[in-house]
Amino acid sequence: MDLWITEYQTKNQKISCRVKETLHIEKSKYQEIVLVDTDEYGRMLLLDGAIQTTVKDEFVYHEMISHVPLFTHPNPKKVAVIGGGDGGTIREILKHKSVDKAFLVEIDQRVVELSKSFLPEISAALGDERAKVCIEDGIEFVKNQKNEFDVIMVDSTDPVGPAVGLFAKDFYRSIHDALGEDGIFVAQTESPFFNKELISSVFRDIKSVFPIARLYLCFVPTYPGGLWSFTIGSKKYDPMDVQEVITDGMGCKYYSREVHKAAFVLPPFVKELLE
Amino acid sequence: MDLWITEYQTKNQKISCRVKETLHIEKSKYQEIVLVDTDEYGRMLLLDGAIQTTVKDEFVYHEMISHVPLFTHPNPKKVAVIGGGDGGTIREILKHKSVDKAFLVEIDQRVVELSKSFLPEISAALGDERAKVCIEDGIEFVKNQKNEFDVIMVDSTDPVGPAVGLFAKDFYRSIHDALGEDGIFVAQTESPFFNKELISSVFRDIKSVFPIARLYLCFVPTYPGGLWSFTIGSKKYDPMDVQEVITDGMGCKYYSREVHKAAFVLPPFVKELLE
Repeated sequence: MDLWITEYQTKNQKISCRVKETLHIEKSKYQEIVLVDTDEYGRMLLLDGAIQTTVKDEFVYHEMISHVPLFTHPNPKKVAVIGGGDGGTIREILKHKSVDKAFLVEIDQRVVELSKSFLPEISAALGDERAKVCIEDGIEFVKNQKNEFDVIMVDSTDPVGPAVGLFAKDFYRSIHDALGEDGIFVAQTESPFFNKELISSVFRDIKSVFPIARLYLCFVPTYPGGLWSFTIGSKKYDPMDVQEVITDGMGCKYYSREVHKAAFVLPPFVKELLE
Repeated sequence: MDLWITEYQTKNQKISCRVKETLHIEKSKYQEIVLVDTDEYGRMLLLDGAIQTTVKDEFVYHEMISHVPLFTHPNPKKVAVIGGGDGGTIREILKHKSVDKAFLVEIDQRVVELSKSFLPEISAALGDERAKVCIEDGIEFVKNQKNEFDVIMVDSTDPVGPAVGLFAKDFYRSIHDALGEDGIFVAQTESPFFNKELISSVFRDIKSVFPIARLYLCFVPTYPGGLWSFTIGSKKYDPMDVQEVITDGMGCKYYSREVHKAAFVLPPFVKELLE
């Protein structure tokens, strides 16, 4: 059998991975959900044709979206993830002993259910007693919270379909108000190589809402171009000034104190997107 | 027309780019050489089916292979590039005013000729009076030099076919002897995600030949996984201690003093390859 799954990463570029087995395909209320087992990356989740996460490379994205803001905040107790239905971000958050409660706010219940069934390595922490899964629209959830959270993470799909509203200034304002006075917000903000305009406009919007705005980078082999960005909005703590980072026992494969600091060093072609 | 060019990046992963026009296809004495014009990356050079360089993303690789060793050495005058027939590395080297002479030692004359014809943005510096193109086997060239060069860069294809000997310990020994007493050697050393064993063994070999061995990283969208490595062997100067870096007027889009330093910060999963 010569079976391949292909993502159009842009109109003009495709990535294809050899498939051992198709595990599940369905159209949920919100999107097409596909789970396949690949030779290169193990099990893989795709939403509307875009690779979301794979067993082999998910550690990079999940460590970097969570540990950078969590180690920036001196004592994060209450954390929310908007999106991230596979549970990988929750798993990393719960490695922080200070965290009492981690909310997963996912619009599509089927993503959570299927991740539990097919991606146990990624989703297992959703069963932790400190995790609370809320199946609802992240935009509505955030609007109803005031001064509640230490860290909010937007672990969204690309800015098409259900995720469009998660890249809007109004949403960033709601997040600002849902955070405590020293709260920190982070969002995945796509590729500096292929989504230059998006990165510029999101950064400008976040900078207009939060006193501190920072962009940082990591690499994800299954995302377009391999280089990926996150943007932080922070009320008090600058993630570039992070001091105490103790990752002992956390099993980090990508994140470290040094990687945290280096991730904020931007090549000139990325820096100029923020000017 | 719906025309695509596809590279098998591994046995189980392919990248495909939409093609506007096929410019040239030939079998040289050493390899298949293909030049196409793509929608995403502009003109692209492929050797034996593997993407070597593209007009849109070549700046990352060429800046990082050259400026990291050249700014580490306080006064590089005589430099050699083994491979690199497209001329992009020579272009970056000649931005350093201290350099009197830059040798391009390329085994395949046709790569040089076709790059001159089809990739002028990349190859133009090959016409500079400080550049000397030598069409010969890099291994033989290096063997015949003693205490001659300040910096030697191995800008090779993947370790298959004509490039196998460029990833061998004997070759590193020859390079050591071809360098002056404070000389620096750098080689492209593939992907930390897909070529783990190669990186480990090359690093061990280089460390056994040079007193200082360091690995650094950058991202190249058209290379497998997007994350790419270079390994340095140095007789005297540690690239992690780089001091004076003045890039004014060099038009760097990826390299900067800060990027230089950050490139040596390795995620734990890369660090463990070097232990």
